[in-house]
Amino acid sequence: MPLTPDQIAEIEALRATPRPTLRAVSEGAEAHLYKAHEVLDHGFIRVIDYMGNDAAIVQAARVSYGAGTKKVNDDSGLIRYLMRHWHSTPFEMCELKLHVKLPIFVARQWIRHRTANVNEYSARYSIMDREFYIPRPEHLAAQSTVNNQGRGAVLEGAEAARVLEILKSDASRSFDHYEEMLSQDGQQGLARELARMNLPANTYTQWYWKVDLHNLFHFLRLRADAHAQYEIRVYAEAIAKVVADWVPVAFGAFEDYRMGGVALSGKAVAVLKRRLAGETVGQEDSGMSKGEWREFTEVWG
Amino acid sequence: MPLTPDQIAEIEALRATPRPTLRAVSEGAEAHLYKAHEVLDHGFIRVIDYMGNDAAIVQAARVSYGAGTKKVNDDSGLIRYLMRHWHSTPFEMCELKLHVKLPIFVARQWIRHRTANVNEYSARYSIMDREFYIPRPEHLAAQSTVNNQGRGAVLEGAEAARVLEILKSDASRSFDHYEEMLSQDGQQGLARELARMNLPANTYTQWYWKVDLHNLFHFLRLRADAHAQYEIRVYAEAIAKVVADWVPVAFGAFEDYRMGGVALSGKAVAVLKRRLAGETVGQEDSGMSKGEWREFTEVWG
Amino acid sequence: MPLTPDQIAEIEALRATPRPTLRAVSEGAEAHLYKAHEVLDHGFIRVIDYMGNDAAIVQAARVSYGAGTKKVNDDSGLIRYLMRHWHSTPFEMCELKLHVKLPIFVARQWIRHRTANVNEYSARYSIMDREFYIPRPEHLAAQSTVNNQGRGAVLEGAEAARVLEILKSDASRSFDHYEEMLSQDGQQGLARELARMNLPANTYTQWYWKVDLHNLFHFLRLRADAHAQYEIRVYAEAIAKVVADWVPVAFGAFEDYRMGGVALSGKAVAVLKRRLAGETVGQEDSGMSKGEWREFTEVWG
Amino acid sequence: MPLTPDQIAEIEALRATPRPTLRAVSEGAEAHLYKAHEVLDHGFIRVIDYMGNDAAIVQAARVSYGAGTKKVNDDSGLIRYLMRHWHSTPFEMCELKLHVKLPIFVARQWIRHRTANVNEYSARYSIMDREFYIPRPEHLAAQSTVNNQGRGAVLEGAEAARVLEILKSDASRSFDHYEEMLSQDGQQGLARELARMNLPANTYTQWYWKVDLHNLFHFLRLRADAHAQYEIRVYAEAIAKVVADWVPVAFGAFEDYRMGGVALSGKAVAVLKRRLAGETVGQEDSGMSKGEWREFTEVWG
Repeated sequence: MPLTPDQIAEIEALRATPRPTLRAVSEGAEAHLYKAHEVLDHGFIRVIDYMGNDAAIVQAARVSYGAGTKKVNDDSGLIRYLMRHWHSTPFEMCELKLHVKLPIFVARQWIRHRTANVNEYSARYSIMDREFYIPRPEHLAAQSTVNNQGRGAVLEGAEAARVLEILKSDASRSFDHYEEMLSQDGQQGLARELARMNLPANTYTQWYWKVDLHNLFHFLRLRADAHAQYEIRVYAEAIAKVVADWVPVAFGAFEDYRMGGVALSGKAVAVLKRRLAGETVGQEDSGMSKGEWREFTEVWG
Repeated sequence: MPLTPDQIAEIEALRATPRPTLRAVSEGAEAHLYKAHEVLDHGFIRVIDYMGNDAAIVQAARVSYGAGTKKVNDDSGLIRYLMRHWHSTPFEMCELKLHVKLPIFVARQWIRHRTANVNEYSARYSIMDREFYIPRPEHLAAQSTVNNQGRGAVLEGAEAARVLEILKSDASRSFDHYEEMLSQDGQQGLARELARMNLPANTYTQWYWKVDLHNLFHFLRLRADAHAQYEIRVYAEAIAKVVADWVPVAFGAFEDYRMGGVALSGKAVAVLKRRLAGETVGQEDSGMSKGEWREFTEVWG
Repeated sequence: MPLTPDQIAEIEALRATPRPTLRAVSEGAEAHLYKAHEVLDHGFIRVIDYMGNDAAIVQAARVSYGAGTKKVNDDSGLIRYLMRHWHSTPFEMCELKLHVKLPIFVARQWIRHRTANVNEYSARYSIMDREFYIPRPEHLAAQSTVNNQGRGAVLEGAEAARVLEILKSDASRSFDHYEEMLSQDGQQGLARELARMNLPANTYTQWYWKVDLHNLFHFLRLRADAHAQYEIRVYAEAIAKVVADWVPVAFGAFEDYRMGGVALSGKAVAVLKRRLAGETVGQEDSGMSKGEWREFTEVWG
Repeated sequence: MPLTPDQIAEIEALRATPRPTLRAVSEGAEAHLYKAHEVLDHGFIRVIDYMGNDAAIVQAARVSYGAGTKKVNDDSGLIRYLMRHWHSTPFEMCELKLHVKLPIFVARQWIRHRTANVNEYSARYSIMDREFYIPRPEHLAAQSTVNNQGRGAVLEGAEAARVLEILKSDASRSFDHYEEMLSQDGQQGLARELARMNLPANTYTQWYWKVDLHNLFHFLRLRADAHAQYEIRVYAEAIAKVVADWVPVAFGAFEDYRMGGVALSGKAVAVLKRRLAGETVGQEDSGMSKGEWREFTEVWG
């Protein structure tokens, strides 16, 4: 269970005391504030704060366009126009702050998104909790035989059982030893900054993560994608649901132009035009490599 | 006058309708929201939105420190500790969004602070307003004879009058011509993106500027400094007053450790230690260059 | 003429003295070093330094892929794969440093690309040169009647002549006055940081600009695009030629996947699939707005 | 041993073939290229590439200062002036690319420096090596009793032996199980992206890391500092030696103004001035907290 009764009580207290503000408000985001959305076996995301809403995107863009803009007179149309034409600065005017609990190996992927603010729970100052990510059996997949970076079929029977047994017992033993090394009971006790090196990469950590909407969309595009590792994708999907409630118009445009969109190379454009003209085109006369052709036909047949 | 009656009415309407929120609130920041603080002859800063308050800095830092932290049990003490030890990430958890009206030559300095979000009024899409910065007589200074990058004594008499006359008439003529080139009255009308090239650098522009508190402090340290050009310093000073109301504890720490602080080189430390031991030290046996020694003695005599 | 005989002699001296290095070398980039490529009437770009070449992209990516990668055994294939799948970090491992001379209004667009290093000629310390951008007659365009942010037909006859006359005389007068205000002949002389405010936005400035290849490609995608303002596009095109010589394989992938590519929204994918299946689809049953449909049919008919 | 004979041969081959270049060259950096400087028990840093030298810093700054600058006519003096006055952009004009092998828990601290380019060896694509950081006995320290984030006395006797035994056996067992889970011998074999979660934080990883000199100095100031964790400090110290050879003048200024320098708060300045005037000042009348006073007296007695 991710949260203790004390923590839940604290969250409920925070949610019980609205205060007046003159700032832009998003009802959709307010409904999420402080609540923990569970992810994986011990993780969560929690909205700690937000800045702006759909109207704030338009308001910022109007400064950029000024009084001269009359054509795009509909907020939704303007937001879709901005998204379609890669105008990123108005989306940067919204900001989301999350509290996230996640396995260390997921955190290591996540942190590669550099344009964000992060404050992580420090294992130099503090003692880590005894919590590890252990995959559910349906997520224990074999190495893909097609894709060097992905997963293939789910493991079965004794092999799956053995993997789970290893992950559980190694994590447990590592944590026992972590505590034993730290203990000051009858001994000096190893420094925390050293003892932590014994903990495996499925140990849970926590951080505050703050990001603007433009960079958050970039994160979601890469991490909520079917090619992302399952264990980070579920975090991206949980965040995507929050964003859909926070800035529904912007999220709709993002879904249409980014998540549901397709990037065509010059060669792919040429092939599609030939096909539209009635021609039959195969890989050999497409100018594409076999890998690129495979990816092309996955979308276009 | 920076704002029209319509704009003032719009601001008053925004300030008349508080709404409930569960987010962290800063009473000090609420009092500033949307109001225009006048700067220079036609400029202003306006707080459009903010995220976080002093408590939010501590809250973010506690994730980083976790349950193990007991020594620094006072919020103010923790914030001062973080500032003293250059822990920047908790300060990044607060964010400020401003609407700023400023001369183009000030905007060109300002934009060099890259870690911020900016949406500028576009002179490709829109027609600029007829507003120029004309210095007040007491700010019309001569080139410094000491400092290649600064100002010296105030200009006097006929010279000052001539400078003001030039600035006013050139700006006025440039703008007349700008409008004449744009005009579609009996002619095609030059494209806005071209006509703007005739406007001088004291033309006012506007933007939305959003920045986190850590980077805002860095901006204030450089731009509210006595060596900064007067015309950007007054913006920094106006923003500093807002920040003092928004996050008073963090701002107090910033004032003590950054604005009121002094950076000593290794050589300067050595000289001070010798002086504290009763020795008399001059430039020639300080190891410092003349320029460095002059800067040293300005502080320490 | 952008360069003085002294400057040309200095460049030739720099080019006359090769030195040995153990670093990765690009013959294509070496051929450009220090030479000025003229842009507009007084501007230029000059390659000052570079880091890496096509092989350096592959080398960095192989660390990321490690010994396990055997499938993508061809450097060119790997670079194309990285570009197609938006793997940006290997491209960040190359870096280009340029010296650029450009009008201030172009510099103001350019600087919005934040992930780059810039050192600009300072008009606080130094006196600007008497050089202004005056468009050639064929670039004097009217405001577009279709696109709020663009140009339409070229101005003709008396109107064009009047615009050129205004731009030249206003620039000339502003510069005369700039010099007059600075003069210390029989007067104190206004501070440089103040006098510069009288100069128009077509005054030329200079800077050193350093950027990694990933961010440079992003710059080129936006600024070498047909929708970019002509005056920045010609800089982007001049830089693109340099990049094509410096990292020819990466540039080829960039041309195919980014410059020659097309981004389709989910709705556009659906329409194309229906058309490929033989259906006739119009705007009204496409789910697209009129603006989006116009942009779609510009590519697909 | 960090490098295999094959790898050493490859490095020697790279070092055997200098090529001509017209770029700025640093003899000091050339001497380091490709060589592995050993750090910890299995780690290293290797210079892969560099851009610029001391003269390149001056050259970039001169654009910024332009022809008007005559006072600071000595390169070394200018570099020291730039460092003293926090002019960061000229230092950003130099760039260093390193190949680093380091334990994961060190990598997790390191990556917090966001303004850098990173390409890490991927444990999704590749199989990790069996290499772990095991501290030498003299680095096995107890938790500090003064400083929540640091180390105290070295562990002794049986306790130290037990810690080493734990670290070695847990790492070894975790890696055996990692290989067992990956094995496709008679079973499907777990996906690499999942199996890696069993590896402890002292497992070695590798990356390419590219950074500009300004941000590198910031890294060195924080990580070569006495308060940094030993295991990252030794990397910073190894890099500092390289930088001292690469840009000796800039490094000298950095040592004097940053590493050997001291930041004084406004309160500390006041106390020093009172002491210089002959007054005796204690914590109670200094305005400082106990913690701040302790840090103050560590420097000033």
